[in-house]
Amino acid sequence: MLATGFNVVGFNWMSSPAATELESIVMDWLGEMLCLPKSFLFSGNGGGVLQGTTCEAILCTLVAARDQILSRIGKDNIGKLVVYCSDQTHSAFQKASLIAGIYPNNFRVIKTTRSTSFALSPRSLRSTICSDIQQGLVPAYLCATVGTTSTTAVDPLGPLCDVTKDYGIWVHVDAAYAGSICICPEFRHFIDGVEGANSFSFNAHKWFFTTLDCCCLWVKDPSALIKALSTNPEYLRNKATDSNQVVDYKDWQIALSRRFRAMKLWLVLRSYGVEKLRNILRSHVEMAKLFEELIATDKRFEIVVPRNFALVCFRVSPSAISEGKTIPSSELLGDNKYINDVNEKLLESINASGRSYMTHTVIDGMFVLRCAIGATLTEEPHIIMASKVVKQHADAILNMSTLTIYMGRVD
Amino acid sequence: MLATGFNVVGFNWMSSPAATELESIVMDWLGEMLCLPKSFLFSGNGGGVLQGTTCEAILCTLVAARDQILSRIGKDNIGKLVVYCSDQTHSAFQKASLIAGIYPNNFRVIKTTRSTSFALSPRSLRSTICSDIQQGLVPAYLCATVGTTSTTAVDPLGPLCDVTKDYGIWVHVDAAYAGSICICPEFRHFIDGVEGANSFSFNAHKWFFTTLDCCCLWVKDPSALIKALSTNPEYLRNKATDSNQVVDYKDWQIALSRRFRAMKLWLVLRSYGVEKLRNILRSHVEMAKLFEELIATDKRFEIVVPRNFALVCFRVSPSAISEGKTIPSSELLGDNKYINDVNEKLLESINASGRSYMTHTVIDGMFVLRCAIGATLTEEPHIIMASKVVKQHADAILNMSTLTIYMGRVD
Repeated sequence: MLATGFNVVGFNWMSSPAATELESIVMDWLGEMLCLPKSFLFSGNGGGVLQGTTCEAILCTLVAARDQILSRIGKDNIGKLVVYCSDQTHSAFQKASLIAGIYPNNFRVIKTTRSTSFALSPRSLRSTICSDIQQGLVPAYLCATVGTTSTTAVDPLGPLCDVTKDYGIWVHVDAAYAGSICICPEFRHFIDGVEGANSFSFNAHKWFFTTLDCCCLWVKDPSALIKALSTNPEYLRNKATDSNQVVDYKDWQIALSRRFRAMKLWLVLRSYGVEKLRNILRSHVEMAKLFEELIATDKRFEIVVPRNFALVCFRVSPSAISEGKTIPSSELLGDNKYINDVNEKLLESINASGRSYMTHTVIDGMFVLRCAIGATLTEEPHIIMASKVVKQHADAILNMSTLTIYMGRVD
Repeated sequence: MLATGFNVVGFNWMSSPAATELESIVMDWLGEMLCLPKSFLFSGNGGGVLQGTTCEAILCTLVAARDQILSRIGKDNIGKLVVYCSDQTHSAFQKASLIAGIYPNNFRVIKTTRSTSFALSPRSLRSTICSDIQQGLVPAYLCATVGTTSTTAVDPLGPLCDVTKDYGIWVHVDAAYAGSICICPEFRHFIDGVEGANSFSFNAHKWFFTTLDCCCLWVKDPSALIKALSTNPEYLRNKATDSNQVVDYKDWQIALSRRFRAMKLWLVLRSYGVEKLRNILRSHVEMAKLFEELIATDKRFEIVVPRNFALVCFRVSPSAISEGKTIPSSELLGDNKYINDVNEKLLESINASGRSYMTHTVIDGMFVLRCAIGATLTEEPHIIMASKVVKQHADAILNMSTLTIYMGRVD
């Protein structure tokens, strides 16, 4: 907390050399822990920077990609640029696209399905791109995700980059949540293929024990960022900048002023150490696995998608709800509404108990409960307790008369 | 510092009601301290929000203005939008315009002159606007400044808004530095005319005793911001939002996640109180006045622009440099190069002494030293000492042979 509050105004290298130097070093350390290709590190020709949030990381790289293409095809052609993502991509991408002036009609959301665990299909991507090109549009940017918000789905980076490289599309990998665990060798495969991407980000404030905000972004070509985002007013001119020997992070981000975020990341890395960090993250995954098992062995529940990391997505299954009830068949068919209502009721009831706090998503029309493990103080007994809370509340809800539940919603 | 590190993830009201409620309250308090028109406060129909930096405040309001106009004239017309500022406006505005997709050719920088203390002239603004309209372009946004970075120049808000209202231009007032002092009744006149603007921002982390980052932004029409910046994914859906009774600050800013910045502002307001804050700010202005007097009474110096707040802009005057020296007349005429070199040398020499730290600007071709008073621990003896440091280093430099100084630069 103190590291967060440490007040350094680091526009450029000159205004706080220590803040910039530490950030560069820490970002290379972390890049090495993730086995990022050398081309993303300062020790290669790339580099890392701490942004506030993924929204900012996406906006900065999108503007870099946009201006790189516009410098080739002319500034007047912003209306031709198309950006791509899946229907599981974080809403930050849509917001960044709107801010960057990408035409809303050129924001392509490619549908995913449960059969591929909601991952973006390279084939669908290619056909969407081809159809855009046929219409005279210019494909510009793909936001791929490793660990989507709803269900921690993983887009296949290698095959996606095989598609984009044919069209010169900037690929950003948003591993906001799941990036952390990729410091463990047995999880590294989730970002295999990142070597084909242009930029990669993950949020240390999500699952890497720093306070908000601390989004780690690496780019292969810092000059693309700098070209798009640099300004050089006289009052910031200084010999260090003129020497071209230093990094001025103001040109890697939206704002001019920046805090000393590297300090908190440095504190985490030095106080835990890489082995301890790996083991804590692994223990979260193990606890999530335990929660998944405890829920899955109760036949009233279904695990909606395979668990990749430490998020479990589950719901009361349709069969458990219909069992022994007289539900109008029209309600059980069609839009899942009745089943969803029961699950929403269950979530509200669990959260109202004050013993566990879970969230939800709606995916493929299903209302799904999400249990995320990741706090520093969480231990196995909490997981066992949480599974009991879920079951007890399900008992109560499934024993209520169908009519009551349903009317509760209609009201 | 602890308040800064306090880790709350407040996307929306629901994720941390206290953070949102406190922010709304604190922003209304502060708006009242500044005597902002009620239309900028929640208690009117406007509202305030804490952004990270002025860059973000400008970008958000620019995107709101952009989309408001584009919804009227069609999304395809982004290339027609023109934005306005003076040659003294902070570079943040240029950066925000580039990010928002405003065509670089439509970024109008209106020249200011020393004769009007570098304030933006309403007449020049009107003629620039008229010429743009004649060319079929659409005036969209004006960034006016109260307290410019270089010299704390003040753009005349009232007369500027009289111009813009004829064309439906969004006016943002950037009072990043000078906004703070406007809580003193005797300084409030500097923002007279703000009632005609659409948005107003100042940085509490500049001269209002909070740590970075804490940019206070008020808007008259929050719905314009929300229309441009809101996203509503399922995983953030909640009853509070659906009720339309709460503020979801995620829709007032670039990022989704946000910290509990209101806490540090609340701490400042509650621990100092408005009277003490006023008195501290006044004491800074008094000390700047003293520094100005101490420099101005030494005939070797000139005060380059009238001091408005707590920044003194000065230089060694051309006459002091030429006195008793044999300087090639070509150097004393023309581009000021020789005079500027002497002043740059003076600044370097002062800063290298480690006793005072000053910055510079180049304005109207003149290299100018800037002495800013504003730290919490600064007292009168420091000011007297600083003025002595300046004079001692000027002694040394003016006594050096002309040739040495000049060759030092040529080397």
